[in-house]
Amino acid sequence: MSDSQSTDDLGFARVDLDRERRTGDPEVVYGAGKTPEQVVTLLTRLHAAHPGRAVLATRLDPAAQERVRADLPDAVLDPVAGTATLGEPPAPRGRVLVVSAGTSDAPVAAEAAVSVRVHGAAVERIGDVGVAGLHRVLAVRDRLDEADCLIVVAGMEGALPSVVGGLVGVPLIAVPTSVGYGASLGGLSALLGMLNSCAPGISVVNIDNGYGAGVAAARIARRTAR
Amino acid sequence: MSDSQSTDDLGFARVDLDRERRTGDPEVVYGAGKTPEQVVTLLTRLHAAHPGRAVLATRLDPAAQERVRADLPDAVLDPVAGTATLGEPPAPRGRVLVVSAGTSDAPVAAEAAVSVRVHGAAVERIGDVGVAGLHRVLAVRDRLDEADCLIVVAGMEGALPSVVGGLVGVPLIAVPTSVGYGASLGGLSALLGMLNSCAPGISVVNIDNGYGAGVAAARIARRTAR
Amino acid sequence: MSDSQSTDDLGFARVDLDRERRTGDPEVVYGAGKTPEQVVTLLTRLHAAHPGRAVLATRLDPAAQERVRADLPDAVLDPVAGTATLGEPPAPRGRVLVVSAGTSDAPVAAEAAVSVRVHGAAVERIGDVGVAGLHRVLAVRDRLDEADCLIVVAGMEGALPSVVGGLVGVPLIAVPTSVGYGASLGGLSALLGMLNSCAPGISVVNIDNGYGAGVAAARIARRTAR
Amino acid sequence: MSDSQSTDDLGFARVDLDRERRTGDPEVVYGAGKTPEQVVTLLTRLHAAHPGRAVLATRLDPAAQERVRADLPDAVLDPVAGTATLGEPPAPRGRVLVVSAGTSDAPVAAEAAVSVRVHGAAVERIGDVGVAGLHRVLAVRDRLDEADCLIVVAGMEGALPSVVGGLVGVPLIAVPTSVGYGASLGGLSALLGMLNSCAPGISVVNIDNGYGAGVAAARIARRTAR
Amino acid sequence: MSDSQSTDDLGFARVDLDRERRTGDPEVVYGAGKTPEQVVTLLTRLHAAHPGRAVLATRLDPAAQERVRADLPDAVLDPVAGTATLGEPPAPRGRVLVVSAGTSDAPVAAEAAVSVRVHGAAVERIGDVGVAGLHRVLAVRDRLDEADCLIVVAGMEGALPSVVGGLVGVPLIAVPTSVGYGASLGGLSALLGMLNSCAPGISVVNIDNGYGAGVAAARIARRTAR
Amino acid sequence: MSDSQSTDDLGFARVDLDRERRTGDPEVVYGAGKTPEQVVTLLTRLHAAHPGRAVLATRLDPAAQERVRADLPDAVLDPVAGTATLGEPPAPRGRVLVVSAGTSDAPVAAEAAVSVRVHGAAVERIGDVGVAGLHRVLAVRDRLDEADCLIVVAGMEGALPSVVGGLVGVPLIAVPTSVGYGASLGGLSALLGMLNSCAPGISVVNIDNGYGAGVAAARIARRTAR
Amino acid sequence: MSDSQSTDDLGFARVDLDRERRTGDPEVVYGAGKTPEQVVTLLTRLHAAHPGRAVLATRLDPAAQERVRADLPDAVLDPVAGTATLGEPPAPRGRVLVVSAGTSDAPVAAEAAVSVRVHGAAVERIGDVGVAGLHRVLAVRDRLDEADCLIVVAGMEGALPSVVGGLVGVPLIAVPTSVGYGASLGGLSALLGMLNSCAPGISVVNIDNGYGAGVAAARIARRTAR
Amino acid sequence: MSDSQSTDDLGFARVDLDRERRTGDPEVVYGAGKTPEQVVTLLTRLHAAHPGRAVLATRLDPAAQERVRADLPDAVLDPVAGTATLGEPPAPRGRVLVVSAGTSDAPVAAEAAVSVRVHGAAVERIGDVGVAGLHRVLAVRDRLDEADCLIVVAGMEGALPSVVGGLVGVPLIAVPTSVGYGASLGGLSALLGMLNSCAPGISVVNIDNGYGAGVAAARIARRTAR
Repeated sequence: MSDSQSTDDLGFARVDLDRERRTGDPEVVYGAGKTPEQVVTLLTRLHAAHPGRAVLATRLDPAAQERVRADLPDAVLDPVAGTATLGEPPAPRGRVLVVSAGTSDAPVAAEAAVSVRVHGAAVERIGDVGVAGLHRVLAVRDRLDEADCLIVVAGMEGALPSVVGGLVGVPLIAVPTSVGYGASLGGLSALLGMLNSCAPGISVVNIDNGYGAGVAAARIARRTAR
Repeated sequence: MSDSQSTDDLGFARVDLDRERRTGDPEVVYGAGKTPEQVVTLLTRLHAAHPGRAVLATRLDPAAQERVRADLPDAVLDPVAGTATLGEPPAPRGRVLVVSAGTSDAPVAAEAAVSVRVHGAAVERIGDVGVAGLHRVLAVRDRLDEADCLIVVAGMEGALPSVVGGLVGVPLIAVPTSVGYGASLGGLSALLGMLNSCAPGISVVNIDNGYGAGVAAARIARRTAR
Repeated sequence: MSDSQSTDDLGFARVDLDRERRTGDPEVVYGAGKTPEQVVTLLTRLHAAHPGRAVLATRLDPAAQERVRADLPDAVLDPVAGTATLGEPPAPRGRVLVVSAGTSDAPVAAEAAVSVRVHGAAVERIGDVGVAGLHRVLAVRDRLDEADCLIVVAGMEGALPSVVGGLVGVPLIAVPTSVGYGASLGGLSALLGMLNSCAPGISVVNIDNGYGAGVAAARIARRTAR
Repeated sequence: MSDSQSTDDLGFARVDLDRERRTGDPEVVYGAGKTPEQVVTLLTRLHAAHPGRAVLATRLDPAAQERVRADLPDAVLDPVAGTATLGEPPAPRGRVLVVSAGTSDAPVAAEAAVSVRVHGAAVERIGDVGVAGLHRVLAVRDRLDEADCLIVVAGMEGALPSVVGGLVGVPLIAVPTSVGYGASLGGLSALLGMLNSCAPGISVVNIDNGYGAGVAAARIARRTAR
Repeated sequence: MSDSQSTDDLGFARVDLDRERRTGDPEVVYGAGKTPEQVVTLLTRLHAAHPGRAVLATRLDPAAQERVRADLPDAVLDPVAGTATLGEPPAPRGRVLVVSAGTSDAPVAAEAAVSVRVHGAAVERIGDVGVAGLHRVLAVRDRLDEADCLIVVAGMEGALPSVVGGLVGVPLIAVPTSVGYGASLGGLSALLGMLNSCAPGISVVNIDNGYGAGVAAARIARRTAR
Repeated sequence: MSDSQSTDDLGFARVDLDRERRTGDPEVVYGAGKTPEQVVTLLTRLHAAHPGRAVLATRLDPAAQERVRADLPDAVLDPVAGTATLGEPPAPRGRVLVVSAGTSDAPVAAEAAVSVRVHGAAVERIGDVGVAGLHRVLAVRDRLDEADCLIVVAGMEGALPSVVGGLVGVPLIAVPTSVGYGASLGGLSALLGMLNSCAPGISVVNIDNGYGAGVAAARIARRTAR
Repeated sequence: MSDSQSTDDLGFARVDLDRERRTGDPEVVYGAGKTPEQVVTLLTRLHAAHPGRAVLATRLDPAAQERVRADLPDAVLDPVAGTATLGEPPAPRGRVLVVSAGTSDAPVAAEAAVSVRVHGAAVERIGDVGVAGLHRVLAVRDRLDEADCLIVVAGMEGALPSVVGGLVGVPLIAVPTSVGYGASLGGLSALLGMLNSCAPGISVVNIDNGYGAGVAAARIARRTAR
Repeated sequence: MSDSQSTDDLGFARVDLDRERRTGDPEVVYGAGKTPEQVVTLLTRLHAAHPGRAVLATRLDPAAQERVRADLPDAVLDPVAGTATLGEPPAPRGRVLVVSAGTSDAPVAAEAAVSVRVHGAAVERIGDVGVAGLHRVLAVRDRLDEADCLIVVAGMEGALPSVVGGLVGVPLIAVPTSVGYGASLGGLSALLGMLNSCAPGISVVNIDNGYGAGVAAARIARRTAR
């Protein structure tokens, strides 16, 4: 494929049309800093290039969501996640469980869940199971064990991945969130906590990066044999 | 008490002889950066000023411990804690439980335990109950609940205080340790984790500060009504 | 108690109804990031679960306070602290003294005071006794000594806990605040100062965490023998 | 399993014998800060508890390696990785490829490779393919694509995972190393670079944590259907 | 030249009229924190002092751009770069190529390009060639090689300069941008990545400092022999 | 003087009326975070306690300045400095020269100048003499030498104090400002630069702390023998 | 004075012989990183250029001190300060008081004291008056008040300057030391504490920079009228 | 060129033999962390591949230098720089001037100078011209102006590039060094100072990275028209 075929120059952006061929997944619209018009244009263009496969836009503020709703009536919006999906997601292979610690972590968990589904795995969610109420974690131990990959979302001290990672041996992607104040340092404390986890086999993505965790988890889950 | 009575000028240091009157506890010898001779001199002088009450030296390296052993045969040394105690500890009031997460946290936990006892409370210890093996914490839940104050020692991500603090409502002093590497930042990650704990009622001392935790916990425990 | 009994699923949150049984204190509504409606719903639900005991909401912005005032006329609001209390606080056991350094530290000190009272201890306050006017601290030395636990609130360099901690031996929880500018780093300088205090027996909570200090202090004070 | 069955108290440590049942993998001896005797004792005890499955010790300094060689002649030592393995590794399921950027990253890459094998996957290595010589990465593109999971090890600016992650869609664990000087900040720059990667689906472990990456990658690879 | 000749005191600022004599380039108006009136006054004054040479204002917000458009109809505005140029740029000597990684880096790349041209070199741009789509970089390798100096602009992990610097030996100025979130730390991660680049011969300017990169690159390019 | 005489309790603040007796200077109103009403009340009260001596309020936003202008017509406002002065400043003893590097440093320099004058020394100012135009510094060398104390204000890299401190031996207080962007880290880079100055005898105050520099310089200057 | 007269090129260093003319004080030998031979050569050369005035070398390790003792028998060594002085100090004008908080701060306090005397002021010292024993500070209040300039040296939380600065209005230079551990961050916590002091008029030098404080204080004190 | 031709696999390293073709300069041996044997092997191999062009090894400790001296008698060692050169440097095109601030910066300046020469430009040096003695900088102004590229090396506050960059318009590479203590933070303060320079057109390399500055400067200088 030549460069002119693999890249679509829209003036304000050059879309990487070759990414699905290389990595199995099409490019995604990262909405932060883009105008509603640019989001709609990019979604439309990506959908045209990948008609048989859902394409995704993330980090959409209310104005961008409104414009997508108006211009792309087939798009599916998730206002908590701040995402729009256009087209049918692939038939799910494997299953990801998204576990989050507090109510304020919900937007990141939702972004992760949508991203998992668009990238080809099934997804379930369990919310509000922070370590300060351990019985809530222990009560779902079996569901943790049955997943093909776990995404564990937590802010503040970010201890939930250590606890979950000590209970089961399922691949686990930890997502620190910026929930907290003062010495939480905008999520750095949760990030550092997860990187230093005493439970082995945990890997970590950027603060609030539900999307990245979703892609990683879907890639793991959809390879799983049943 | 005049200043000349309340302070004992040894040339290299001015001992605060008035501290027990003000705060209930005599001054303590912080051994880091002091010569073995200075440690022995200070312990001797403090013991003379407080004959009916144990006095303490902390952060003693092997040379200082050796010199104390030679010059002060009545002193009690704890080589793991790096401490020396001279004189009888007060009759214990209240009980502190020191809980630590990993084997490498033992020196800090030991310094905390010695400090508790010297400052007038009874002390017990439970070691190696990191959150990656939650059953080890849950197995000791009743002992946690029966203490008058808890000291919880952990390095790496420092998640143990959050777990313990969600299980019981006993006053809890968390001690981060410098155990870890890389992004543990010499204990800062554990410190930040504990400060951001989602379990309420936890307070924190400096990295590796077993002594400070011991003083704080003993003051809490010895006030407790039975 | 089964998980379905111990947790109340409200959709946007799962309330930990079991916390009082485990720790002696009911769950608290942390208002930051919640809608006024969610605050009212959570307060109502917690009050129903703990009818004989005051429940607390913190970090309420003016809109949330207004809504609580309208919907829950029995709630007691503290606009400086940003808190709402619903129900009778327990009969006080022990007494906590909240000492603050500057006028700008008042909201944190007020949050601490409300939290102490809701968690079952009596509370008094002394404000504006910064170390730059030492006579103001020395003038209240006796009151410091008579408390069962001290909460010391300070921003900027956070030196007040060191001074107070050298005057008395009462258990002391230090609260750094984000008051300051430039090299105060949003409260980190005060936090670091308190963690490195040369006065023994001081423990520290997160920046601006009056609530956490209040819970810790109340737990200490209400155990005290008289 | 009772606590006394699931934990083996050696005095200096309490071994978690239950971990394999919970997570599929036995506990590992983290050698840093342990005496050669403790390493030998722990390896022996773990081997006895898991006779049919290799057990691992990491971060062994030369003295510990020497002692293992003398006392445990069946142990397999890897001096570059600083590891010892005792017992047969499980039959490999799935295949992990460890890719490293510079010659100084070799010890971390070796620790990762040994850990992968002990945790039940096959492993291959490609070294010295830093992004400053892109032809070396491009030349191995097919091998990258055929792996079930990638471990990408790099110090300095840590750019290699971004390049690899843009070429293939295989699950990818990035390992920052402490290789570098000055503004590398002991590996923090590489860590931050990897967390901010513009290539989606990358997750990250602690600086120099080859072991953690190995466990994570093996868990992913051994689930893969062929 | 006396101080009164070399400096023009405008009350709110003292313009350095001597700079062109010393360094070859006139002073530039840094618009951040200046009122639209001050920007117009300074541009006018600099233009009067350097009538045969374009003068530049950077970091102009929309209000300042509007005012310049109204008061100085001969000025050329670049709304993406946030710049205004007044007067003819020097005949170009040498050629600079500005390469940027993502669409959000466009403002910084544009500021760099305008600055290059005003400071006397020709300039071209290539956008949106992030390392996650390496084919886009490789496709322009020849153009990279033909430039007299490269400016490489990237946010997030800032890996593009390492890749470009490994492909060609052209002098290369790297510009980190504040594009990113969470652990990007406002551009510090990209800055650190570029400072630690494994490709030799790269030098770096401040975060978002397109102007500084433009001056440096123009000075290099215009010295080049053809 | 008893505590009730030395402190004036206004409810929202306790004014330190004893400060002038102890330190020679009355308390000052720090306006940040105070309502316009509180500023007026405090200024009025301080003026009543120190009728023969100017009292000062700093960090006044436009609303507070407007209120002071309306309620206290005798107050002198400096809108650049954000200050209000009420009463006659003391007869000046000694002379302070405030030197600033860039136009954006003017507010901090103005706050310093007002503070000097209120605290009893004469003051002069020189602005916009950054080190990138060294001739502007060298042209004022004699004026630097004649001052009794220098205040040197600079943002960005904060190099001006090093240059000035190498030219003259006058006591020098350096004030870093938050002027800059990116790696200026809100003034931390200037602060660090000044603390590491290779010119001896420089001391430093907090970022943007013109007031503190003014107090320090006035105390130095007014002791000077002529 | 031409450059060849004002600079003495020794091969490994170029001595600034003009500094006394410009600033009133000769250059000083900073011993860290210099060989004993270089220290002796530099001291000898500076003494020859300033025969009527003491010259100073700081940061001398034991080997350098030994060599100075052997080669320059007229030099006066201070082993606690790590300094050597050659020649007669100027007749003292004004008086500086050096106050330090803990025994471990003695070397920095000693370096400050020697530097004061060499730079032409008289000096006295008070040690070990940390804020945890406030009576020790209050007992010396009159001596604080009588000094022409104060140097206040403290490590850990660095609170002593705030307390002293609230007691008297004497010019005050604060010196943070690297004494402490864990969250003291090598003296950064003390530095930050001093920069954020709530007592006005305090200025600060680099961590452990007794020399810089001494120069600054001597310059202030020797200007004082009696 | 095939991968097997462009890369030389030595087991412990894969030498990039293709680098000169791509970038104009052969690969360099970075000696840190390599054994003396590896350094000799790599130098020998690179020399064989580039017989007509000098090859370079940097960061050689005394043992590695000794071994090079013994095994490669034709190599030229620079003990201050810690470098070894094997083969004839290219005929110089253009001229670089290396300017350093203090005597302790000499090793970094020497590494830069050697690297310039090996990479094909002529080089001169001026040492010990710190900004605290400005006359030393001003005395060499003409030499600064005549260079084709400047390398400016400084530790502590790193102010020298700002001063030099304000005097001339020559391309300028700034090198921060780790010289300093306390708040110099191992060179970070100098690095930050240089990145925030108020003089335009300065670009910066990593702390102590004389080599990188040398490569960058040589590439600039050798393009210069005469």
